[in-house]
Amino acid sequence: MYRSDGKVPEAEIKQRIDRLQSQLGDAGADAALIVQKADLYYFSGTVQDAHLYIPREGKPLLMARKALERAAAESSVGDIVPLKSARQIPEILKRNAYPTPKTLGMELDVLSANLYLDYQRIFDGSVILDVSRFIRLTRMIKSPYEIGILREAGRKADELYAGIPSMIREGIPEVELAGLVEARARKLGHQGTVRMRLWGSEMFFGHLMAGPSAAVPSFLASPTGGEGTGPAVGQSAGFRPVGRNEPIMVDYPFVYQGYISDQTRIFAVGAISDEWLRAQEAMIEIQSLIQKAARPGASVGELYDMAVARAAELGYADHFMGAGPGRVRFIGHGTGLELDEYPFIAKGRKTPIAEGMCIALEPKLIFPGKGVVGTENTHIVTPDGLMPLTTFNEGIVRVD
Amino acid sequence: MYRSDGKVPEAEIKQRIDRLQSQLGDAGADAALIVQKADLYYFSGTVQDAHLYIPREGKPLLMARKALERAAAESSVGDIVPLKSARQIPEILKRNAYPTPKTLGMELDVLSANLYLDYQRIFDGSVILDVSRFIRLTRMIKSPYEIGILREAGRKADELYAGIPSMIREGIPEVELAGLVEARARKLGHQGTVRMRLWGSEMFFGHLMAGPSAAVPSFLASPTGGEGTGPAVGQSAGFRPVGRNEPIMVDYPFVYQGYISDQTRIFAVGAISDEWLRAQEAMIEIQSLIQKAARPGASVGELYDMAVARAAELGYADHFMGAGPGRVRFIGHGTGLELDEYPFIAKGRKTPIAEGMCIALEPKLIFPGKGVVGTENTHIVTPDGLMPLTTFNEGIVRVD
Repeated sequence: MYRSDGKVPEAEIKQRIDRLQSQLGDAGADAALIVQKADLYYFSGTVQDAHLYIPREGKPLLMARKALERAAAESSVGDIVPLKSARQIPEILKRNAYPTPKTLGMELDVLSANLYLDYQRIFDGSVILDVSRFIRLTRMIKSPYEIGILREAGRKADELYAGIPSMIREGIPEVELAGLVEARARKLGHQGTVRMRLWGSEMFFGHLMAGPSAAVPSFLASPTGGEGTGPAVGQSAGFRPVGRNEPIMVDYPFVYQGYISDQTRIFAVGAISDEWLRAQEAMIEIQSLIQKAARPGASVGELYDMAVARAAELGYADHFMGAGPGRVRFIGHGTGLELDEYPFIAKGRKTPIAEGMCIALEPKLIFPGKGVVGTENTHIVTPDGLMPLTTFNEGIVRVD
Repeated sequence: MYRSDGKVPEAEIKQRIDRLQSQLGDAGADAALIVQKADLYYFSGTVQDAHLYIPREGKPLLMARKALERAAAESSVGDIVPLKSARQIPEILKRNAYPTPKTLGMELDVLSANLYLDYQRIFDGSVILDVSRFIRLTRMIKSPYEIGILREAGRKADELYAGIPSMIREGIPEVELAGLVEARARKLGHQGTVRMRLWGSEMFFGHLMAGPSAAVPSFLASPTGGEGTGPAVGQSAGFRPVGRNEPIMVDYPFVYQGYISDQTRIFAVGAISDEWLRAQEAMIEIQSLIQKAARPGASVGELYDMAVARAAELGYADHFMGAGPGRVRFIGHGTGLELDEYPFIAKGRKTPIAEGMCIALEPKLIFPGKGVVGTENTHIVTPDGLMPLTTFNEGIVRVD
């Protein structure tokens, strides 16, 4: 009834839990209780409705509600028990000989306020504190198993993008073109769901917009926004027909078996002006600069400053990563099970680049009323520096 | 730069805010502060990053961060001011002559715990309480303007489903078929994003599965689950090829300009057994029974009981709305800007049916290891009873 392919191996789950346990002391938590989908998948191998209890030392316990049998088939956590209601958890922990935690770490960055208040009542002898930072630090460093899936996601992204030129024609509405690209992505095994962690974020596939509509800013923590199909969605593809001689941006993360390869490419119907070509070359140059500088030990804030300085030298100070108040203060971000993972290659951040990180770099230029160019690739940090997951042509791809 | 089509009219925004204001007394709140996307769109007309302050009496104030100009262009709220950080809100309110609220209502069912704790510090002279129930009650009754958009969503859903038979062929993997259906939906203007409110819910388009994989249960509060593309997503379409002589279920909400028409239809390649045909007829009969009974004043809990009793009489007690622990205790739900709106046509609920509600009924039979049949339509409650938004053939649609 449940497919066993794609199951996260037991050794993988064990090392992930070990790494979180080794940080729970620093977090001041006697135990962690994991409920959010991306975290639950990472530490247990299932996204079914379940609570994963991880004590500072000793074995974890997965308490699953719906669907219990599915969670049991998918998860490599050794001990799995049924759960009807979160109210039973303290009793289940007692029955399984876990001491009552004085401090219980939860994902307070994503858990709802009402659930937080419920858990405070349920664990009335415990202090509930936020361990989301420690969970994100654990997830920041990818294992060889994860890197293998990320590479596959990148290969599939290349295959997706290779098919895009034949879908583009002058006059096709952005949202119709988006549908064609999305159908090909699905055929290649894209899971659909693109998870983001930041509260209030929304993401459907990604951003596919052409000409001026690509430069319309939105609420999203992203250099681009897009008209969208209306104010109810407020970002990404809209009904505007793709024109000739304007940059068409496709920023579509490919999500394969949970993992996200994020990349952007630019296409154009017919010729495109030298101004756009120069702008595109500038972004490729900045990406190359950061790719070379982002060796283990480099500071992410310094990488950000380096990119901003070079954009200014090239004459793009007012358009790099957004224009006016729409500008974002980062040039890249981690990816993995979520699109907005650690580290953020952002202004003032001190995190050093480390082996095993998975980093999307996305230097972009936004010209209000005109359009967007730029590039984006996701990379794995190796001892020798950044290894990109995607190889598709980074110049503006002309379609006739 | 910003399209003005699709803007929510000023009179519409005004009556929505009036209706919430008239409930804030019952809620015990001096004011409400709205931040979640669906609620923000409902009460302001924009989903840009903003806070909408609604005092118990008097004019609302929209404080917008990113993108401010876009929010100002999209919203019909009269007073709109810039906001850099939520910490400025008390000062901005003071400057705009609002008295400090003793009690401030927020959306604690969806707001994150960390944000809730932040707002407690920001509003240190106020008690923050949950007004999500009152917001949902306000949104439960649709205006003629909303009903107009919902009808359009239903018409587009019919157009989408009319195109599905030509996409189905034996051997096509579920996820590839899903991509074709999704591409047509996008061409018709489907916005992509399908919003759900319940914490921990995830929804990508909907559920499209065939034969046994349709009957695989998942975490979702839904009668169906689906294999999915792997355990990382754990629901909906997977890689299994569609077979002959088995029910293919397409439960794809159509989302147009924010509003959701939810419907399900069953297709089959080649002949389908009498057993399946009888089961499908039974679900159509139960839908018809509930459609007739669901007149203004009827209790939703009694409608649920009526459906369950009739399913048992027809011999389907063990398969109605799920099998075993995968069963859900509802036969329908409200829709609107979110897929899981009030009212829930659920066991034990007392809400009376009322004019202006928008209700999806979804009687379904789940046979583990075999498949799923059933139907679903979204309806507007009129003084004369339920008016369905969709008309596409409800029998099993044979494709050869």
